[in-house]
Amino acid sequence: MSEILQKRDGLIIKKNEAFAAKAEALKPVLLQREQRPQHIVQVVSDERVIHGWRVERETSAESLPARVLGKGEQIIVDFGDHLVGSLSMSIKPVGSPPDAPLYLKLTFGEMPVEMAVPFSEYDGWLSRSWLQEEYAHVDVLPGVIKLDRRYSFRYLKLEVLDTSPKYKVSVEDICCTTVTSGDRDRVGGLDHTDPELQAIDSISIKTLEDCMQEVFEDGPKRDRRLWLGDLRLQAIANYDTFQNNDLVKRCLYLFAAFPNDQGQVTANLFIKPEVIPDDTFILDYSLLFVSTLHDYYLATGDKETLEELWPTAFRQIEIGFEQLDERLIVKDSETWYSFIDWHPELNKQAPSQGVLIYAMKQALYLSGLLQDDRQEELHRKIHEVQAAAMKHLWSEEEGYFISGKDEQVSWAAQVWMVLAGVLDKEKSSVLLLRVLDEKPGTPLMTPYMMHHLIEALIQVGERDRAILEMKQYWGGMVRDGADTFWELYDPQNKEFSPYGSYLINSYCHAWSCTPTYFIRRYKL
Amino acid sequence: MSEILQKRDGLIIKKNEAFAAKAEALKPVLLQREQRPQHIVQVVSDERVIHGWRVERETSAESLPARVLGKGEQIIVDFGDHLVGSLSMSIKPVGSPPDAPLYLKLTFGEMPVEMAVPFSEYDGWLSRSWLQEEYAHVDVLPGVIKLDRRYSFRYLKLEVLDTSPKYKVSVEDICCTTVTSGDRDRVGGLDHTDPELQAIDSISIKTLEDCMQEVFEDGPKRDRRLWLGDLRLQAIANYDTFQNNDLVKRCLYLFAAFPNDQGQVTANLFIKPEVIPDDTFILDYSLLFVSTLHDYYLATGDKETLEELWPTAFRQIEIGFEQLDERLIVKDSETWYSFIDWHPELNKQAPSQGVLIYAMKQALYLSGLLQDDRQEELHRKIHEVQAAAMKHLWSEEEGYFISGKDEQVSWAAQVWMVLAGVLDKEKSSVLLLRVLDEKPGTPLMTPYMMHHLIEALIQVGERDRAILEMKQYWGGMVRDGADTFWELYDPQNKEFSPYGSYLINSYCHAWSCTPTYFIRRYKL
Repeated sequence: MSEILQKRDGLIIKKNEAFAAKAEALKPVLLQREQRPQHIVQVVSDERVIHGWRVERETSAESLPARVLGKGEQIIVDFGDHLVGSLSMSIKPVGSPPDAPLYLKLTFGEMPVEMAVPFSEYDGWLSRSWLQEEYAHVDVLPGVIKLDRRYSFRYLKLEVLDTSPKYKVSVEDICCTTVTSGDRDRVGGLDHTDPELQAIDSISIKTLEDCMQEVFEDGPKRDRRLWLGDLRLQAIANYDTFQNNDLVKRCLYLFAAFPNDQGQVTANLFIKPEVIPDDTFILDYSLLFVSTLHDYYLATGDKETLEELWPTAFRQIEIGFEQLDERLIVKDSETWYSFIDWHPELNKQAPSQGVLIYAMKQALYLSGLLQDDRQEELHRKIHEVQAAAMKHLWSEEEGYFISGKDEQVSWAAQVWMVLAGVLDKEKSSVLLLRVLDEKPGTPLMTPYMMHHLIEALIQVGERDRAILEMKQYWGGMVRDGADTFWELYDPQNKEFSPYGSYLINSYCHAWSCTPTYFIRRYKL
Repeated sequence: MSEILQKRDGLIIKKNEAFAAKAEALKPVLLQREQRPQHIVQVVSDERVIHGWRVERETSAESLPARVLGKGEQIIVDFGDHLVGSLSMSIKPVGSPPDAPLYLKLTFGEMPVEMAVPFSEYDGWLSRSWLQEEYAHVDVLPGVIKLDRRYSFRYLKLEVLDTSPKYKVSVEDICCTTVTSGDRDRVGGLDHTDPELQAIDSISIKTLEDCMQEVFEDGPKRDRRLWLGDLRLQAIANYDTFQNNDLVKRCLYLFAAFPNDQGQVTANLFIKPEVIPDDTFILDYSLLFVSTLHDYYLATGDKETLEELWPTAFRQIEIGFEQLDERLIVKDSETWYSFIDWHPELNKQAPSQGVLIYAMKQALYLSGLLQDDRQEELHRKIHEVQAAAMKHLWSEEEGYFISGKDEQVSWAAQVWMVLAGVLDKEKSSVLLLRVLDEKPGTPLMTPYMMHHLIEALIQVGERDRAILEMKQYWGGMVRDGADTFWELYDPQNKEFSPYGSYLINSYCHAWSCTPTYFIRRYKL
């Protein structure tokens, strides 16, 4: 069933044709909706708000056709909510017949700052090609501009770079045709008594909706890719909302269809022009394939898929074992062997040990269902790896799990060890509350790690604390103006970006969509 | 037959539906050809050449696919000749799968300088939208870029604004699909003994070919419009080359279809999205409608068209009369009532008087053919207007025609008075040779006025001098690297532009294409 798909710099990728065909057959039809701008706005400098820029309403978008724009003039429109889709508009000349083309610049922004700071000032590490700007010449006026690329935005800035002295232009019928594979009609209503949780739930769902495309994308602005870490969280948010379970199934088959020659699943896949696995293989993400399959089975009872993908899942556990040293501790290194979180100083050893144990326990559950004869060995191995974690990574002195040669205390290590069930429920609870109280060592940096903290709190019975933390973190984004939840949010440093510039951050990001899962699944 | 088409700022435009329908029926089919780049080149600073930049061949374009371009890198290709058409190319990623879109900038240039000087430095008076540059994002790689706009160029610069650290790109199959309504197969060969004239003839024909589109355009880079002054010269170059006489007929009907409420034809027409006459009405161009009809009839013998368009032509003469003062001299003013030439100091009075007499004489010939009963009156009027010119505009003291209240001596005035036949052949010859010898007053600035000088020299029998002047002027462009003849060329000031920057000059311009007419019609 498997053949070698490609060799690239020593990397051998295999392709399971049957799995790839199943994934292809599950390709969703995208739902479309036409959305029009609500307001003409201005961006105003304001030190009190995130990034220092806020939007101020000027007038209704109905007055758009009456606005006449000449060379050097601009207008910003606000669609009133985050959108993912293509754009079209009509442009009419005003004055003499146009004796030169119109030269227009369009800038799309998820956040007010993208309407204010010129992208030419961007000097981050990721490609500036992600910044959503277009230059367009219109040779024939009146005319219709159709931009067929897909944009992720709420705000649109139109700048007239040039017309000619003989004419100006007016713009009308600006329309975004949105796309998603999430059907709103399948999402049940939530009539929460707490308006803050109600709002957080809505924004979570909007975030998920905008990331549901031909696959579960990580972010519609950037990277627009199927990442395993994001997929797992989108899937659990999806089960209680859009219920597009076939999309989860499709994504599982996609990962299983393109392993490397060791059988490891990639961290992410490119979907176009054809499915290509990225050459990034990381321990935690591979292990979370097991978790995603586990959750999928629990949500759907689809045993056929479970049986078919189980060998791929189990192989990830085995690959995890290969990463263990003679003490049964994850071999540490300076490389990106594991992701865990974006904190630049974070040591990955202890949290990765936690992810391994977490995944092993889910694998154990599945192996029992499938009556896999490796069940007993797995059971034994869990105890050994867990015991090793307690022996070598638990510091009795500190009362924390420590990681790496510098014995780093990180929140991520504590959270993952709790999720892995290395300590009993009571000790786990004490540990987590101490973390929140003492704020030791290396903190969490992303909604992705925050998700795991909330999940851990709920797991140890700290529901109220979970709600409190969620309201502080995701509620903080809401108070800072989020229409969809952001890839990155550090309440202490709201300008944080791991990419050298917050202009390139994604402000609608899959791994931030899970509050709806907590609220609905656990009836918070 | 005529109805009011539109009112615009007090301007009333009429539409003759029957004429417009005839023009529409004559719309040509555009011929297409695929052209590929010949060389990879570099632009090199060189003070000795025009604009200070020349192109240096690096290698054959066959090596293009092997070139790998990363962020910040660029390549310039040379198609080997001037082209007008759309562009497509294939782009392949090199390295890891592309994890970000490609952001590309494309710059098209007729001249080496356009490959060297950033268009952002342009600060001329015309719209910078004419400068041929595009920004393109390519989301899916490998991919094909198709640019559907029409470009006018020989050189193409590709700049990779960004990829990502994980991949670079290579470019192949760059292809320009050229368009023209001039069929090369209809152009007879010229086997001239003088290689310089042979070269000038070829370049003239290429210039005309690239300006022949759905109408005779003035310049395919800029303004891409049907101007009466250009049409007249293109038509006479066409009769002995492409012989697309229906295209001339179409353009004559277009002008005749959209007069203002006085019956004056506009100086130019916009063709898309629908035919719209420009709100520019100038004396000399309107009068040259008569001349264009006259030449068309002589070339084709198409009396039906002559009869149908004669009333429009005669009306332009009457409108010319309305411009005369009580002395029968063209009323002068500071406005752009007449074009004549681009020299900023040029007084238009005497040259316009020349154009009027020139057109009246052609109208007289046509009125005879048509047995128009106004023939006799026209004959009398010619004598009066000509006598007035001699009385009020001829300076016996200077031995030159003078113009305006400051009694300006311009070359244009002498040339148009000679073309109008105000002096006899001998005196005309003496006058022209004195002009060339003494170089008095306000010189000529454009190939358009140079055409009229050459025509005048031939008319007075100075064939050798005509050839000499043509070789100096158009030959100068050839020596300066012209693939097609330029809109503007001042051998004394090669940076001349009436628009504030030579970047926006058109380097393939209709009114410069007439040497082939001189060489072939007069067997020079």
